[in-house]
Amino acid sequence: MTRDEGDVYKANEAFYSAFESLDIKEMEKVWLKEKYVQCIHPGWKSLTGWEDVMNSWRQIFENTMEMQFLLTDVKVQVRESLAWVTLYENINSRVGRETSSGVILSTNIFEKEQDKWYIIHHHGGPTMPSPETGPRATFH
Amino acid sequence: MTRDEGDVYKANEAFYSAFESLDIKEMEKVWLKEKYVQCIHPGWKSLTGWEDVMNSWRQIFENTMEMQFLLTDVKVQVRESLAWVTLYENINSRVGRETSSGVILSTNIFEKEQDKWYIIHHHGGPTMPSPETGPRATFH
Repeated sequence: MTRDEGDVYKANEAFYSAFESLDIKEMEKVWLKEKYVQCIHPGWKSLTGWEDVMNSWRQIFENTMEMQFLLTDVKVQVRESLAWVTLYENINSRVGRETSSGVILSTNIFEKEQDKWYIIHHHGGPTMPSPETGPRATFH
Repeated sequence: MTRDEGDVYKANEAFYSAFESLDIKEMEKVWLKEKYVQCIHPGWKSLTGWEDVMNSWRQIFENTMEMQFLLTDVKVQVRESLAWVTLYENINSRVGRETSSGVILSTNIFEKEQDKWYIIHHHGGPTMPSPETGPRATFH
């Protein structure tokens, strides 16, 4: 693993730590403050720009009591000042009194600015419970 | 739009034309032949590497009679030899005698090699029917 790959790996972990903190201040630290950042929460429409993306995290944090991630099959790729990561988010969460668990498959894109990697794109989508299982659908 | 942005826009369109063709030879032309390419069909697990990705397209093409895309809200971003595109795939498809329509929200990543852009990452996931509607879920 190169230094950049290690740094991106850590930036990705920092994003999920910020998510677990349910603290908007923590989430603000890991995103690049640009109008082109994008966030696609599972099943949501695509949100573009710092303001809309941060508002979505505020909404989520207001409604979530607890959030726990186990990240598996984390793959990191780096090209110059851009990197992308894919991973399975194995989630335990509590919204109100309701606890639930599930698996989300995500693509995250990071950009390096002044030697620090920031997330600029998050796309999470539903997937099968176990990565070992074969395809669930027969077409796209 | 810069020349690179225009080229990526066209490479993205070429990917969907290849999909509509239901011809594996066309799909092979638009993907970079590397072991690190990844493809996440909606609801599937993540597939990595040229062989697994092409096998998935073969499976899909064998089971699909017709595929039609209307691409909306296409956003292109370029950094050096890497680019990413987000868009809504408004789909009409026919599998056997069954026709269906739906909307998939996708993140596609492209890499430039010898002045040509190739897709190296496709992540498609379900989304709301209309991009204008608000979030469907209250948490991630």
